[in-house]
Amino acid sequence: MTYYQTKNIGVVPPPHLSDKLRLYHVNMNPYGHRVLLILEAKRAKYEIYKLDPLKLPEWFKEKNPRLKIPVLEIPTEQGDKFLFESVVICDYLDEMYTRNPLHSTDPYVKAQDRLLIERFNELIKGSLECFDTNFAFGSEQIIQTLDIFEKELASRGTNYFGGNRPGMLDYMIWPWIERLLLLRCVNAKKFDSKRSLFPNFADWSDQMQLDDIVKKHAHSPMEYFDYYKNARAHCMGYYL
Amino acid sequence: MTYYQTKNIGVVPPPHLSDKLRLYHVNMNPYGHRVLLILEAKRAKYEIYKLDPLKLPEWFKEKNPRLKIPVLEIPTEQGDKFLFESVVICDYLDEMYTRNPLHSTDPYVKAQDRLLIERFNELIKGSLECFDTNFAFGSEQIIQTLDIFEKELASRGTNYFGGNRPGMLDYMIWPWIERLLLLRCVNAKKFDSKRSLFPNFADWSDQMQLDDIVKKHAHSPMEYFDYYKNARAHCMGYYL
Repeated sequence: MTYYQTKNIGVVPPPHLSDKLRLYHVNMNPYGHRVLLILEAKRAKYEIYKLDPLKLPEWFKEKNPRLKIPVLEIPTEQGDKFLFESVVICDYLDEMYTRNPLHSTDPYVKAQDRLLIERFNELIKGSLECFDTNFAFGSEQIIQTLDIFEKELASRGTNYFGGNRPGMLDYMIWPWIERLLLLRCVNAKKFDSKRSLFPNFADWSDQMQLDDIVKKHAHSPMEYFDYYKNARAHCMGYYL
Repeated sequence: MTYYQTKNIGVVPPPHLSDKLRLYHVNMNPYGHRVLLILEAKRAKYEIYKLDPLKLPEWFKEKNPRLKIPVLEIPTEQGDKFLFESVVICDYLDEMYTRNPLHSTDPYVKAQDRLLIERFNELIKGSLECFDTNFAFGSEQIIQTLDIFEKELASRGTNYFGGNRPGMLDYMIWPWIERLLLLRCVNAKKFDSKRSLFPNFADWSDQMQLDDIVKKHAHSPMEYFDYYKNARAHCMGYYL
């Protein structure tokens, strides 16, 4: 069963929402990918409007003057409203739909997970450094962050950060890990040699790839490899 | 009734916690001030350990290698644990103690409040610019951010961001607003002339000063004025 339709954004605003949510998303954008995972995990009804960030229509810029992406449009009693920032959107969805809760019910664990989502930004920065061809510096940042998550998984002693199934932290970091797998296309031997450094995390990554929610919006390492090669050639930094 | 004691941090770690929380705090630090307000709002039992950030004991650095301040120490079944980041600590407290809930029960309003807390960082940056003597640039950032909060209060049509009493957003921004009042010591006429630009926000600020929770950890504009004058003279940027 499919819960979503995909449309391209137009010069006039789409109709008012009634029974579903609307995600404005740039194709392949990892922050939007986070929201897609949570929409699926929550079995929300939604539609996706695809944006070309270099050709944003005027009505969209007016509603979103800071040009944030992704944006979730929500039907409310006071009309449709916009929500920004992937982490805030995802926490909103987790609270709005009580089914399949993604955050721990233990406030301390939830707080730790929030700090780890914050900490993961260093891996995101490292990935951008690599994209900007500052490979040595970027990959060091990535390795250091992976080490934190490796130790965290080991200390939790569970398959997922969320326990025996993926939770909010698992899905919040997944988009960048799915993309990291493209490095196998660059040098498979070197990539595989890193597995022994991060045994728990590598196993987690294998399990995540088999998750039904992850599979719904997954791309292959080769697709990412081609996409980022093209993005670099065409200076599409904004798309990342 | 007082819920807290204040002690100075020592060369050996303080005893394990049993029935209360422990806040490691740098005097006059606005991020720690946030946590103090929420501890009071939740009527938590806590003790304060005062830190001198230039003389942190070794045991504290080991437990907190990123030297984050403030830190909340929490008794758990697995021993005492540390929690960092003022916003994360405050949300933790709001979830841990169900009395006097500070976040809206409407997930959309809660999400908006989180975005506004994030947005408020621009006023914090502006204040630091002013402290660094880049006064024109800093005050413009402050004015622009105050304008957002003025409009938000007007559109909510309530005395506080949290409705008819202060909520999480009110307390998260208050420490910097309390400090802004020191500008009246610099130029009272100029300060008062700004009131008409921000009528709702100025009224909110008046009300907040009368709040019992705010009063518990308040300092006067003159105390802040003297403190920051001294801090600048002694290059105590870290204390801010």
